Amino acid sequence: MVNVAIMGHGTVGSGVAELLIEKNERIAKGIKSDINVKYILALRTFDGLSYSDKFINDFNIILNDSEVDIVVETMGGLKPAYDFVKSCLLKGKSVVTSNKELVAAKGAELIKIAEDKNVNFLFEASVGGGIPVLRPMVQCLSANEIFEVKGILNGTTNYILNKMIMDNMDFSVALKLAQDKGYAEKDPTADIEGHDACRKICILAALAFGKHVYPEQVKTEGITNITLSDIDYASSLGYVIKLIGKAKKSSDGSVCVSVRPTLVPKEHLLSGVNGVFNAVSVTGDAVGEVIFYGQGAGKMATASAVVADVMDCAKHLNARKYLSWEEGDENYIKSVDEKTKLFVLFTSSDFDKTLLDITSAFGDVAVIKNKQSGEIALVTNEELESSLNKKIAGIFADSKKILHTL
Amino acid sequence: MVNVAIMGHGTVGSGVAELLIEKNERIAKGIKSDINVKYILALRTFDGLSYSDKFINDFNIILNDSEVDIVVETMGGLKPAYDFVKSCLLKGKSVVTSNKELVAAKGAELIKIAEDKNVNFLFEASVGGGIPVLRPMVQCLSANEIFEVKGILNGTTNYILNKMIMDNMDFSVALKLAQDKGYAEKDPTADIEGHDACRKICILAALAFGKHVYPEQVKTEGITNITLSDIDYASSLGYVIKLIGKAKKSSDGSVCVSVRPTLVPKEHLLSGVNGVFNAVSVTGDAVGEVIFYGQGAGKMATASAVVADVMDCAKHLNARKYLSWEEGDENYIKSVDEKTKLFVLFTSSDFDKTLLDITSAFGDVAVIKNKQSGEIALVTNEELESSLNKKIAGIFADSKKILHTL
Repeated sequence: MVNVAIMGHGTVGSGVAELLIEKNERIAKGIKSDINVKYILALRTFDGLSYSDKFINDFNIILNDSEVDIVVETMGGLKPAYDFVKSCLLKGKSVVTSNKELVAAKGAELIKIAEDKNVNFLFEASVGGGIPVLRPMVQCLSANEIFEVKGILNGTTNYILNKMIMDNMDFSVALKLAQDKGYAEKDPTADIEGHDACRKICILAALAFGKHVYPEQVKTEGITNITLSDIDYASSLGYVIKLIGKAKKSSDGSVCVSVRPTLVPKEHLLSGVNGVFNAVSVTGDAVGEVIFYGQGAGKMATASAVVADVMDCAKHLNARKYLSWEEGDENYIKSVDEKTKLFVLFTSSDFDKTLLDITSAFGDVAVIKNKQSGEIALVTNEELESSLNKKIAGIFADSKKILHTL
Repeated sequence: MVNVAIMGHGTVGSGVAELLIEKNERIAKGIKSDINVKYILALRTFDGLSYSDKFINDFNIILNDSEVDIVVETMGGLKPAYDFVKSCLLKGKSVVTSNKELVAAKGAELIKIAEDKNVNFLFEASVGGGIPVLRPMVQCLSANEIFEVKGILNGTTNYILNKMIMDNMDFSVALKLAQDKGYAEKDPTADIEGHDACRKICILAALAFGKHVYPEQVKTEGITNITLSDIDYASSLGYVIKLIGKAKKSSDGSVCVSVRPTLVPKEHLLSGVNGVFNAVSVTGDAVGEVIFYGQGAGKMATASAVVADVMDCAKHLNARKYLSWEEGDENYIKSVDEKTKLFVLFTSSDFDKTLLDITSAFGDVAVIKNKQSGEIALVTNEELESSLNKKIAGIFADSKKILHTL
């Protein structure tokens, strides 16, 4: 019999409780031992549930109960999650969390404590919700050197962009709809400014390349500046705009990490990821590109990943698992000048001059023209980004909007 | 130090040898112990390789060397692979294989022997080549009851269909091209008749639902009857034709398994899987639908999955792993009458009568008409398959071609 405490009874926590309690028989069969949810830590009690007797509001009961082997943290945020998780690990309890903010900020430190104490610290649910990503990346692709991890890591922004693309809906209208549907928070900043995606690419990068990447180190840009006309121009040029988190290893061992609106070619599978779904692409030297797709959020999907981690912990109590990386450092994250294609939208009061400049800079590249609005859109040929920027700077226009491509 | 023998030095076997020998340092770091390739079993020797000294042609050297802990089988086929693998397991050696024919035919028996001997029998590479599928399905989705597994399991047929769809190429021309490119064998039967996909869906079904499914139990249909006009009609109706292997659990515990050309809605991610790529979709009660995508074949991609299994074995010598199912039985596989949509292509010498019959059977459903050829194509509304078939039977036409939808 393995005793579990769940901290937090919000969307994910209540899903975890339901799975562990209501599907107890299935889970016991899977791990060949019983799991007992002993406590659920919440600010208040929840009456009328089959497990209403399990609620407590004093963390110390969990911490000091030596029968509790595994603690599930689904409270979110850093405070008090960080202190609670750290205390549990130090007490020799395994911890499973869905808290991406915690893992992105404190992952290396917490992993180190778990290693020292020979317990598990698992967080599959922190990236991609229910989608198996972290464990397959580490275990199934273990024969590979991983070069690049990228993907659609935030369902809310993908839903909003999708509504803009499919239904020609303005950003603000699509955001309102996402809020009405419960996909976006009242304060949507963390999603639409890219912070949530940033935390997830930090975790993916750390796991793929072995060193912690801190959110502050990542150039992060959200989707608030994307307009319907950007989307239309991108579509005419054969692309779909997605918010992409990306981490890439350079030949010198440094890593380049970004979160930004990105033009994805319509032939690439990531362009077909719609609604609140997520997808993570991993490129290794032997396997090439593999993609993991599914629900990146939601109560039961996320709970599914948390419970799989709990089951794994229960089968391997006191056996440290595979998720591990070192502390990061300042010089590890670098912007590297690489070959790429850029999307540029010029707005010009001298249309003909701008067109002429474009031709002289980029030759026979396809452009989409709108003489009435003075807009010219194009995707450049592939060149070093520095050289593209130099060429773009030399082109006459009143304003220039530049977006990256995948 | 863990000693490995590789049986077979074809496409996959040579890839495994290269990874294990040339990337030895990376692999040793990953598992914190050394792997030594002691023997490579092949009919002949291969000169000029860095590991030319390792070739042997007598299987008994491997079988009787107590230092060999792990045997990799990449010979393919049942004879002598089955005898060799069985003998190795009985001698207490772990076995890793990429041989789907072997696993689909003898999986339950070989798993049972491995369990008895407390060794590993792993076969991630047997489905989806390098794509992590089996391990994530069993480990990361362990909190789920899995209802359905389906996917594009054969790269050769997907390449051929893709060429037909994108380049308007006839089946025979596309097949020839696939052969020229090395994607299809000289004798392409196993691919184009669906046998290869059948073996893979058998393995997926066994793992998802816990009971062996034998290839003979699966209704298997290849792509040889798919014409360019089928593809055009499907496209006009919003679908792409793919060869889909599918296994679905019914409420009575029986399982329905099929391999057949299937119309996939263009909005579904599987419709965007192009070229020789594979994708496997798994649906669980908590997680919903997740999809795993990547290279389903090829030397290094498949070797990547084999070597990950070898590394897992090396870390867990004498610890039986998670891949397990029971022997199957006759009554387990059933055709169930379920709600579905069907694609029907009518060819009629009395166009108006056929149209009238269609309207009276299916009401206002969208139809694509070609009066010149006498063809009418449609996708029905969703109804029980038996009821759809009854309606279709009552419609006048000279010939009727029926395909399933996803």
